[in-house]
Amino acid sequence: MSLLVIGSVAFDAIETPFGKTDKIIGGAASYISIASSFFYNSINLVAVVGDDFPQVFIDELNNRGVNTNGLQIKQGEKSFFWSGKYHNDMNSRDTLVTELNVLGTFDPLIPQSYQNCEFLMLGNLLPSVQSTVIERLQNRPKLIAMDTMNFWMDIAMDDLRKTMGMVDLLIINDEEARQLSGEYSLLKASRIIRNMGPKYLVIKKGEHGALLFHENDLFFCPALPLEDVFDPTGAGDTFAGGFMGYLAKSGDISFKNMKKAVVYGSAMASFCVEKFGTERLLELTEEDVNARVKLFLTLSDMGF
Amino acid sequence: MSLLVIGSVAFDAIETPFGKTDKIIGGAASYISIASSFFYNSINLVAVVGDDFPQVFIDELNNRGVNTNGLQIKQGEKSFFWSGKYHNDMNSRDTLVTELNVLGTFDPLIPQSYQNCEFLMLGNLLPSVQSTVIERLQNRPKLIAMDTMNFWMDIAMDDLRKTMGMVDLLIINDEEARQLSGEYSLLKASRIIRNMGPKYLVIKKGEHGALLFHENDLFFCPALPLEDVFDPTGAGDTFAGGFMGYLAKSGDISFKNMKKAVVYGSAMASFCVEKFGTERLLELTEEDVNARVKLFLTLSDMGF
Repeated sequence: MSLLVIGSVAFDAIETPFGKTDKIIGGAASYISIASSFFYNSINLVAVVGDDFPQVFIDELNNRGVNTNGLQIKQGEKSFFWSGKYHNDMNSRDTLVTELNVLGTFDPLIPQSYQNCEFLMLGNLLPSVQSTVIERLQNRPKLIAMDTMNFWMDIAMDDLRKTMGMVDLLIINDEEARQLSGEYSLLKASRIIRNMGPKYLVIKKGEHGALLFHENDLFFCPALPLEDVFDPTGAGDTFAGGFMGYLAKSGDISFKNMKKAVVYGSAMASFCVEKFGTERLLELTEEDVNARVKLFLTLSDMGF
Repeated sequence: MSLLVIGSVAFDAIETPFGKTDKIIGGAASYISIASSFFYNSINLVAVVGDDFPQVFIDELNNRGVNTNGLQIKQGEKSFFWSGKYHNDMNSRDTLVTELNVLGTFDPLIPQSYQNCEFLMLGNLLPSVQSTVIERLQNRPKLIAMDTMNFWMDIAMDDLRKTMGMVDLLIINDEEARQLSGEYSLLKASRIIRNMGPKYLVIKKGEHGALLFHENDLFFCPALPLEDVFDPTGAGDTFAGGFMGYLAKSGDISFKNMKKAVVYGSAMASFCVEKFGTERLLELTEEDVNARVKLFLTLSDMGF
């Protein structure tokens, strides 16, 4: 029983209205692993970095119970690097630099000890890499979740459709849901997208919360209003990590439990944006997380 | 014991991606009166129209228990007329025509039978007209709520500040809250605005729900995801009407009860946008409203 996490482990350089960073740790799988480790202690990571990647962060993951046997370290090569600048409203950003480096030839090898995972989280990657991971598993996990982005809809739609046909749950944002479905109404979009494969769909709306769809069930979780959104980078991946970590811990994929998982994911994401990169996540305690979840419950209590 | 409603009663001509209307009934006080009449049966309207205004709509209000003794009908003059066109995303619109007509010289006379109202809803109007209404009441209502808009922030900020200093509750949208406070964060904005007078603040976020603030209490009510938003006109006023009608019925202005009022207001607004103008509201039954409120409860039930 384990949660298998695939995605980028990388460097980011981020500029927001609150400041800018040098190269810091980023990547979807970094955020997913850290967030899920708050809930679950059997997390297996598959990713690739260059020999420029700091061992201290790998140690940090190990200390949190994340198994990095599947983290390939390519000698003489460089880690994936992304640099971006957020606009004043924090809802849009410009990509300044994308250096694929090791990610350009990523072959997601699955260590034998990672087989028989119960949960699989496919972080945002080339859809063909995501489907390769599924094909390399000897047994189908109980729940396969994937993230993706509009970039793949533009350049690899066939591969994306194939991968979507293999998964149970898709986690995307509202803009991506609209592009993928061609529908502005998220209700209509959700039906079209769920006809492409995933029975479950999470649509993240950033500061406006998140929606969970399954058959005729619909759940909305608000985002926590914050004093400041310091840096939105990784918030979506942190959501996915909290969500999957909570599900993996409980082993319960009923709609009722998935709603709770959305709340835990939203709580983790609300921390993520309070500081640059993974900084805030790394300093959190279990008490912090539980107190934050209580705030969500209070926020949405209708008083009936 | 009554709810006093002040605002425009007018004609609108609306164009949305779904179609366009000729002159139909509009105006803040029309929506507020209709929505509040679902909950409360002692509603007194103060407004002004020209002799072009259809008696059949006044009869409709009377049939719903709305007292129109305070509705001035100006012979030889024309009713306020607004025409607008919504963009494809329904979140923005262009005003095509604004003819103030009778509204340009509106003197809000309060019939003696309207005195001693417990609740006062000041629909969006010139802030000096709103404050005149308060000054003409012999006893201060238990709860005074007001709506306003960015237009008054641009051209009548001193009057707006004065009126805000006289009310208990302000209902505005997120864009207006940001303009009024100069803060992007709605948490920060809410504190600045509440320092201007109103102890209670509702920030409406359209398709993204609504926030209620009071002291350190915070409540978020989602908007119901809809197949289509057919026409957003009047949704904010319908929210205010449902909110105030529910409060007036119960007479309870505790935060807990205000949260319920936000849910009822949101439910009414979710109907409003399903057809042009007041059309959907006029065909609703009590059962429709109660069923819709149940959908809101289900939507936001976190499963804990």
